[in-house]
Amino acid sequence: MIITMSLTAAPREIEAVKTKIKELGYETRVSAGEKKTVVHVIGATDRDRIIKVIEPMAGVENLIPILSPFKLASREFHPTDTIVPVGVHTIGGRELAVIAGPCAVESEEMMLEIAGLVKEAGAKFLRGGVFKPRSSPYSFQGLGEKGLEIMARAREKTGLSLVTEVISEIDVPLVSQYVDILQIGARNMQNFALLRTVGRFQKPVLLKRGMSATMEEWLMAAEYVLAEGNPNVILCERGIRTFERYTRNTLDISAPPVIEHLSHLPLIIDPSHASGDWRYVNALARAGIAAGADGLIIEVHTHPAQALSDGKQSLKPEKFRELMDEIRRIAEAIGRKL
Amino acid sequence: MIITMSLTAAPREIEAVKTKIKELGYETRVSAGEKKTVVHVIGATDRDRIIKVIEPMAGVENLIPILSPFKLASREFHPTDTIVPVGVHTIGGRELAVIAGPCAVESEEMMLEIAGLVKEAGAKFLRGGVFKPRSSPYSFQGLGEKGLEIMARAREKTGLSLVTEVISEIDVPLVSQYVDILQIGARNMQNFALLRTVGRFQKPVLLKRGMSATMEEWLMAAEYVLAEGNPNVILCERGIRTFERYTRNTLDISAPPVIEHLSHLPLIIDPSHASGDWRYVNALARAGIAAGADGLIIEVHTHPAQALSDGKQSLKPEKFRELMDEIRRIAEAIGRKL
Amino acid sequence: MIITMSLTAAPREIEAVKTKIKELGYETRVSAGEKKTVVHVIGATDRDRIIKVIEPMAGVENLIPILSPFKLASREFHPTDTIVPVGVHTIGGRELAVIAGPCAVESEEMMLEIAGLVKEAGAKFLRGGVFKPRSSPYSFQGLGEKGLEIMARAREKTGLSLVTEVISEIDVPLVSQYVDILQIGARNMQNFALLRTVGRFQKPVLLKRGMSATMEEWLMAAEYVLAEGNPNVILCERGIRTFERYTRNTLDISAPPVIEHLSHLPLIIDPSHASGDWRYVNALARAGIAAGADGLIIEVHTHPAQALSDGKQSLKPEKFRELMDEIRRIAEAIGRKL
Amino acid sequence: MIITMSLTAAPREIEAVKTKIKELGYETRVSAGEKKTVVHVIGATDRDRIIKVIEPMAGVENLIPILSPFKLASREFHPTDTIVPVGVHTIGGRELAVIAGPCAVESEEMMLEIAGLVKEAGAKFLRGGVFKPRSSPYSFQGLGEKGLEIMARAREKTGLSLVTEVISEIDVPLVSQYVDILQIGARNMQNFALLRTVGRFQKPVLLKRGMSATMEEWLMAAEYVLAEGNPNVILCERGIRTFERYTRNTLDISAPPVIEHLSHLPLIIDPSHASGDWRYVNALARAGIAAGADGLIIEVHTHPAQALSDGKQSLKPEKFRELMDEIRRIAEAIGRKL
Repeated sequence: MIITMSLTAAPREIEAVKTKIKELGYETRVSAGEKKTVVHVIGATDRDRIIKVIEPMAGVENLIPILSPFKLASREFHPTDTIVPVGVHTIGGRELAVIAGPCAVESEEMMLEIAGLVKEAGAKFLRGGVFKPRSSPYSFQGLGEKGLEIMARAREKTGLSLVTEVISEIDVPLVSQYVDILQIGARNMQNFALLRTVGRFQKPVLLKRGMSATMEEWLMAAEYVLAEGNPNVILCERGIRTFERYTRNTLDISAPPVIEHLSHLPLIIDPSHASGDWRYVNALARAGIAAGADGLIIEVHTHPAQALSDGKQSLKPEKFRELMDEIRRIAEAIGRKL
Repeated sequence: MIITMSLTAAPREIEAVKTKIKELGYETRVSAGEKKTVVHVIGATDRDRIIKVIEPMAGVENLIPILSPFKLASREFHPTDTIVPVGVHTIGGRELAVIAGPCAVESEEMMLEIAGLVKEAGAKFLRGGVFKPRSSPYSFQGLGEKGLEIMARAREKTGLSLVTEVISEIDVPLVSQYVDILQIGARNMQNFALLRTVGRFQKPVLLKRGMSATMEEWLMAAEYVLAEGNPNVILCERGIRTFERYTRNTLDISAPPVIEHLSHLPLIIDPSHASGDWRYVNALARAGIAAGADGLIIEVHTHPAQALSDGKQSLKPEKFRELMDEIRRIAEAIGRKL
Repeated sequence: MIITMSLTAAPREIEAVKTKIKELGYETRVSAGEKKTVVHVIGATDRDRIIKVIEPMAGVENLIPILSPFKLASREFHPTDTIVPVGVHTIGGRELAVIAGPCAVESEEMMLEIAGLVKEAGAKFLRGGVFKPRSSPYSFQGLGEKGLEIMARAREKTGLSLVTEVISEIDVPLVSQYVDILQIGARNMQNFALLRTVGRFQKPVLLKRGMSATMEEWLMAAEYVLAEGNPNVILCERGIRTFERYTRNTLDISAPPVIEHLSHLPLIIDPSHASGDWRYVNALARAGIAAGADGLIIEVHTHPAQALSDGKQSLKPEKFRELMDEIRRIAEAIGRKL
Repeated sequence: MIITMSLTAAPREIEAVKTKIKELGYETRVSAGEKKTVVHVIGATDRDRIIKVIEPMAGVENLIPILSPFKLASREFHPTDTIVPVGVHTIGGRELAVIAGPCAVESEEMMLEIAGLVKEAGAKFLRGGVFKPRSSPYSFQGLGEKGLEIMARAREKTGLSLVTEVISEIDVPLVSQYVDILQIGARNMQNFALLRTVGRFQKPVLLKRGMSATMEEWLMAAEYVLAEGNPNVILCERGIRTFERYTRNTLDISAPPVIEHLSHLPLIIDPSHASGDWRYVNALARAGIAAGADGLIIEVHTHPAQALSDGKQSLKPEKFRELMDEIRRIAEAIGRKL
């Protein structure tokens, strides 16, 4: 529930409302806008009682029950688009954001080479996994902290901002020291302990949609991060599980327009995991941008056949350059830029 | 299995191969190219025996077993893109095809009005249901032959080619007399009796993908039509069933690139049924074209709120004009035209 | 909508109501019970107008709007269990019905041998496909009428009632002359033309659930048959498509209790198609009966490895006898009998 | 890969093999049986090289490459059924295990009352959530440690063994001090950090199947726990997501026979979460036992309508007693006991 205070509400009137809400058993979060102050009541399930008590109080202008199960993530609560600052870059404005790099960090030499190539092609963000959530405990699990150090050196050399996945609550402080965006993978979309932990930092969070999650569940997962006080959430559509077998997953191309309708959070597309096949990555990337996504995350590898994971879906650098050209043309056609 | 005859194969050698295949119990279909002749063996399950018997015959150059479960539909069998002729128009070339119109034909007045509007906006094909496959026997089932007559009058006035769904084997001859393209709906994608029946006519067939069908099953359904001798199949991706509830179905945006890879048949996108919500139709249409689709089928209605079916997903004419503008720009960006 | 006439309503009052409903544009179906008469209004979408017109008429006791989208199939409309008569047998009472036999009729010799074996083990119904709906046009399509003749001879020799699938509207009259139950396959669950056709005969219909159909859609498909006047519908749960790959489909074991709650129609289980693997058939069959199903349909073959279709899921006769013993014990445990 | 040492292999020969494997870059785990010793090579991807080096070594009898992607969980690796000891009880033998209790621990009074009732009806294990993984951050999240204390008092009074879910790595040591079985919920099935953490304790783990997970992925999740050294894993089938809407999920009734075929781990069924509706719980429970499950986990509440979560699917105590009677009869019919 949202309580809008009147233009002329005094600070002590705002305090009185906060105190009363607390007595009713709920927490509040206050947003002081340029003109008005809004008091957000968290977890209010007992609407009628709150309205009865709060409505008559001095300085209260209006009470708005939020109808969607997510609140802070809803466009109703935050009408303008969120633009997430990431170092010197941003995600969510008119300009498209492209994140590129290998599935996993394998060696410093490889990482620096790929970083240089994707930067040259126009990417502003570098991806690379150092803690890999693998279905089997016997698959390559990533280089851990050594991989973080390699990534940091790639940033030094190229200026690219860094994105990596974090899979354990315990690793969050460490990983936060090294990278610019913490990725929550599809398998952890409803790992609420991990969502809460990254919500307590201010580091931007790239929240992948779960493999069979609905968009409502996804926005509620974002709500866990936002409710802890971290407003910097970027959604990432990476394909959902369907019965189709020619592709690994099915990119939900309705995510950009639907999320834009329901939420203020930026959304990017991951055509590499969605298709699982490099031959289809460019077509899905073009489609994602045409549908209104704010950017892309693309797997690029210099030697896909030798990659320790996900080689089949990685683009070679020349194919990635082609992709950037195609995206540039689509962006212009719809009034955006790369 | 495909038997390639040598450049110098004599007609009687080709006949001898056909006769021998018949003796082995299989039918053949012969494609005489400019240089070489290819004999296609239909339904051959007993490869080794055929190879043993046919390989030594005079004029035989090569035997190619087809590995995909569909044959006539495969790009391996027919490397160049199929362009389906539809009256004075075509579907499948560089130019995009746009089919538009109401879900169901409701009255002559309404139909003529909508036909005029979509033609003006640039559509070349008119859709309209006269036999409706409704989940409930108590829902509006369509106007039947009266609807066909109305459609024919709309074609007379506008020059638009006509598309309508056929849901019964028995109706195929009647419907064929009126319209230019026979649509097979998603629920009938594996109604093999109906597929065979439309395969015996030369009328182009718009084959919608089943709600939970894989692309392989879809191409095998196309194979039923092709195997009866009708080469004019247009595939239509209309969304598959997923767990997402904000949209009615999930448009499989990987269909254009995957089908292009596997098959020579043209493919169009139906963003109206895929989303079930007019607000998302334009974004999905842009995405479909950006991903490489050969055209669109769009529900347009002058008074969506009064439509007897599917009003929620129908575009008003002004929104449809906007869509055409957007598609024109995307088409240019990828080297096609509207 | 259902109109209950009062105990003392005169025949001409009932006629007057029927006439008025007809004027309003709807059809009626009248059920004359021992005490009261009920007039069922088919396809009434305009509830308020009907209530306004009919409620004041002489002899009218009550108007009950039916809330479920299916009516004739609902338990609300027909509170007691339907028991479908099939020749000398029935399906739907306390006694369980077991249908067994090969996937396809392959030869007379094989059919007679299997028929004898399944009869001996306690089955009362013989299954066998003569028109096969195959995903590929090049797979074995069944023996057609010759297969029907073979089945008829098996009935003569064993007294087993016959079940076979019909896949074309045009074949319904022919197939009806030979067999005791017409099966509508999963792929045709929403082939409304075929449903209507079998609804015009009185031959019992075994209606398989579509591969991705909800139970509501399935009951609406049954409604198509019932609405044409054929009350003899038997539902068959045969597994739905899921992401699991160790089994071909996933048997929806909640179908027996849910359907029992919503509908009066009998329901049987097909563990052979649900699992696609003979090793799991017995466990699923036991589960189905324990959950309340009214019977089973089981694929049995003397030489599964040589079967022309579905060999992998067929039980050998000795395994089928084991199954019958297990089912007998489960039936006793829940107060039913085999 | 598994290396079987010969009957007469000397300890130093076994050591030599372990050392050599380490040099090749892999970890080992040694199982010393009564007669033979087996050396398990973890994560070996380079089969040929290992075979070449190890096969000629003294004391080596045989090298068995494991083909399934899970190893320790496979029946091939561990042919006899695992029986998990839980305090004075066990899960996995001939006797069925029944876990019952409320969704969430709400108060001591309620918990003690329910514990007494389910014990009287024959349950040996008490369930109750204290850390609740809720889709929304604003839903009731559980009582935390206070709830654990209440559960411990219920065990004192009744002797029931305790089961509760753990949702954070950090909570594992605390929760382990209070309860007898740590539950990993469906949403955390691929939370590999949590799986590894519970694998480092010896406390039995109840591993729920993910909402859209395949059985292979589920067994690989179990493998994460086993690979850390905790052999006490109990699998729990709780329904998978499908398109059906009359039930919350679809119980995969093929899980008992398929898992029994592939793995030695015990499996129980959760019909409460699978159906989401108390009316269908008994039917699903009977089916699960008939299909071969080793037990049940059932939500029971004295006042379902007032429950803070999942009231709709909770059985009242009298209904639970009925269930126990039904299960007893099914168990006898298949040669097991309650």
